[in-house]
Amino acid sequence: MGDGERHARSSAELVEEALGRIEALDGRVGAFVAVLADEARAEAAARDAETAAGRVRGPLHGRPVAVKDLIDVAGAVTAAGSPKLAGNRAERDADVVGRLRDAGMVILGKTRTHEFAYGVLTPGTVNPWDPDRIAGGSSGGSAAAVAAGMVGFAVGSDTAGSIRIPAACCGVVGVKPTYGVVPTGGVVPLSWSCDHVGPIAGSVAEAGVLLEVLSGVPAGAGAAAPAPPRLGRLVGEDLAMVDPAVTEVVDRLCGELERRGSRIDEVELPLRTARSAVATMVLPELAAAHAALLAETGEQGYGERILKAIRRGQQALAVEYLAGVRYRDRFAALVEDLLADRDALVLPTIPVVAPETGSRVIELGDGREMGVQEALTALPGAFNCSGSPVVSVPVGLVDGLPVGLSLVGRIGADQELLAVAGVAEEATRFSGRPALSAR
Amino acid sequence: MGDGERHARSSAELVEEALGRIEALDGRVGAFVAVLADEARAEAAARDAETAAGRVRGPLHGRPVAVKDLIDVAGAVTAAGSPKLAGNRAERDADVVGRLRDAGMVILGKTRTHEFAYGVLTPGTVNPWDPDRIAGGSSGGSAAAVAAGMVGFAVGSDTAGSIRIPAACCGVVGVKPTYGVVPTGGVVPLSWSCDHVGPIAGSVAEAGVLLEVLSGVPAGAGAAAPAPPRLGRLVGEDLAMVDPAVTEVVDRLCGELERRGSRIDEVELPLRTARSAVATMVLPELAAAHAALLAETGEQGYGERILKAIRRGQQALAVEYLAGVRYRDRFAALVEDLLADRDALVLPTIPVVAPETGSRVIELGDGREMGVQEALTALPGAFNCSGSPVVSVPVGLVDGLPVGLSLVGRIGADQELLAVAGVAEEATRFSGRPALSAR
Repeated sequence: MGDGERHARSSAELVEEALGRIEALDGRVGAFVAVLADEARAEAAARDAETAAGRVRGPLHGRPVAVKDLIDVAGAVTAAGSPKLAGNRAERDADVVGRLRDAGMVILGKTRTHEFAYGVLTPGTVNPWDPDRIAGGSSGGSAAAVAAGMVGFAVGSDTAGSIRIPAACCGVVGVKPTYGVVPTGGVVPLSWSCDHVGPIAGSVAEAGVLLEVLSGVPAGAGAAAPAPPRLGRLVGEDLAMVDPAVTEVVDRLCGELERRGSRIDEVELPLRTARSAVATMVLPELAAAHAALLAETGEQGYGERILKAIRRGQQALAVEYLAGVRYRDRFAALVEDLLADRDALVLPTIPVVAPETGSRVIELGDGREMGVQEALTALPGAFNCSGSPVVSVPVGLVDGLPVGLSLVGRIGADQELLAVAGVAEEATRFSGRPALSAR
Repeated sequence: MGDGERHARSSAELVEEALGRIEALDGRVGAFVAVLADEARAEAAARDAETAAGRVRGPLHGRPVAVKDLIDVAGAVTAAGSPKLAGNRAERDADVVGRLRDAGMVILGKTRTHEFAYGVLTPGTVNPWDPDRIAGGSSGGSAAAVAAGMVGFAVGSDTAGSIRIPAACCGVVGVKPTYGVVPTGGVVPLSWSCDHVGPIAGSVAEAGVLLEVLSGVPAGAGAAAPAPPRLGRLVGEDLAMVDPAVTEVVDRLCGELERRGSRIDEVELPLRTARSAVATMVLPELAAAHAALLAETGEQGYGERILKAIRRGQQALAVEYLAGVRYRDRFAALVEDLLADRDALVLPTIPVVAPETGSRVIELGDGREMGVQEALTALPGAFNCSGSPVVSVPVGLVDGLPVGLSLVGRIGADQELLAVAGVAEEATRFSGRPALSAR
């Protein structure tokens, strides 16, 4: 989008270009676990034949797209980052893959995920901005593939931040849509109550068009940008963890938005409680989702961390789980209340820039040390509790690494939120590009 | 309805008549725990003034209605059948009570419920057809009040059959609407996943009009009766428990419907598994709902049976609870599949007529003995799992006691189901009246 020349290019050319970039770059990035070259070429030819016959399925007709390897693509293995599923060849497309095809998109390959989407590291994928840094996760492959310019569009999933965390780490746009808006059929479940599928792309506009495809709404439903948006900036104890350099980037953007007419006030939310409610729901649902596989194939092949989580989930009491479920409505009501007279809430997507590979503990803005997993999910995970739509947009650099800003919108108002995110994106100015990039 | 003369009578006359009947009969029936005589008279006067000024709120304007004592009426105690809530005066009306008032109805009083709606006996209320028989429960007071003619309309709640069981026992019409169609705000919870609020009345048409009020749809939305409805009659192992005399009543009705053009085939559903999934959800949700009350006031005042259920719920594992929740969608899909080319499924509401007071065990159709609680919830409880709308209609007598037929409809098609139930009601012929009756 925004690149007039591209519209004239055939799907075959776009696919060959993407395959060439993967060939050149992915040995170093590690974004893909499978490249579906033959299938993609055949699909591209079919789409080009349709175009020649005057049939264009939509604005993304013929465009290559990568999908997280948690999502079924008929005929391909869905390994979900685990040796346990190495032979798990999908018979049918996931619901969202069907929608991508209906929109004319070409499935280019499967991208790397943290084991069963339970983790933020995505080992095997590096950050295109700095190969010594993590790409984030669990949708690390999807975000890195877009950041390195190997593909323009990718699909990820997000249970406690797994789209937004790698989007922030890799300097791309990631959207966790409103809960339930994008179907999860054919996606390996982590937590039915908290799983969301959503788009990752290079710009807010591209993410918006892909979200239309994923959510099955007619193309062109995108909302107009509001007059300078009213924003609530999250403050309080839970934000003390944010690195001052990251806060400064957000300060700068907020200042620019205010110069452009936005009113921004400070608001608070019990983010820590909401994040904790998500964990209370995720652990037993993870245990339930893995009960059959564990019974059939045993512990062999599970990593230590997920196995511990499954064990904790097995031991959780129903009344504890219910406390988490019951909190969901209360937290969602708090978020909606704040959005009654604001267009979006803003906060840093994660408290730091992408940590170095291998660091297990990071130092936070308030001097505390915290495990990487906990630190990176602390802020984004809260909104898997409310089910609110959230967009992470890159809004600056710290030490040459991207900073992501999250904008939180009203339940069901995903396209309106994207319009607000577009205003933030437009107010952002920073230069720099990934070290590993085709562009 | 169907009684032209009534339309001309004032709300004040209707309220005085109802109060007179309660005065005359309720000493023996025990349907009411509180009669709101002064409030009802004041409300009736206000409604009559509106009528005189040409303002009639709807078809039930000025009509008295009784509500189960689980449902908040501002200013009145909601005791939920428990000494623990003897001082629990409601500050606000429950959502449904607000809707009754908006429709012009006059709240006449609170009806007796089994302790916290957890049980089918409703001790203290007798069956108007035979005072040595139970009224059923937990909405026993509501059903008995309508059966005895003390009031034409009542509201109950149903978590595993608690509207339909007493409706069947007392020979009145009871509706468990589609899950979520009638709000439960201001109703003491038993199980958020399985609780339903719905109408009890003397005829299908009256129940339908009251359901319109409770669900907040515009008056007159009732569906037309279909051409002779296509029905699926439930058969199989789970139905073997039904008393042959009850089966014979259903046989007779089905024969009459077939003579009138209905096609009826035999269908099966895993009712026992669905009923068990309901228990798996109800126990932990009961424990969660009572956690605060139990912590604050201790075990004193709880009956032995509910205390045991709370203890079981406290000990249940989250993964067990999740298995129940996960089964809900599967069972609902099975029910909807059968309804793809049928207008309703039919089965006896309960396997026997109203048991004698004091009997703890009853003999079933297949010779087995079963506890009363388990036997009466076995069939209706399954549909709290699917969330399907179900209507219980009296369709005959066995030994001078009413037999209820349940008709199960498609999710969300409540008024269509009531139209089918109207056809069954019209095809029914039996004579007899309650021993304790104002009519």
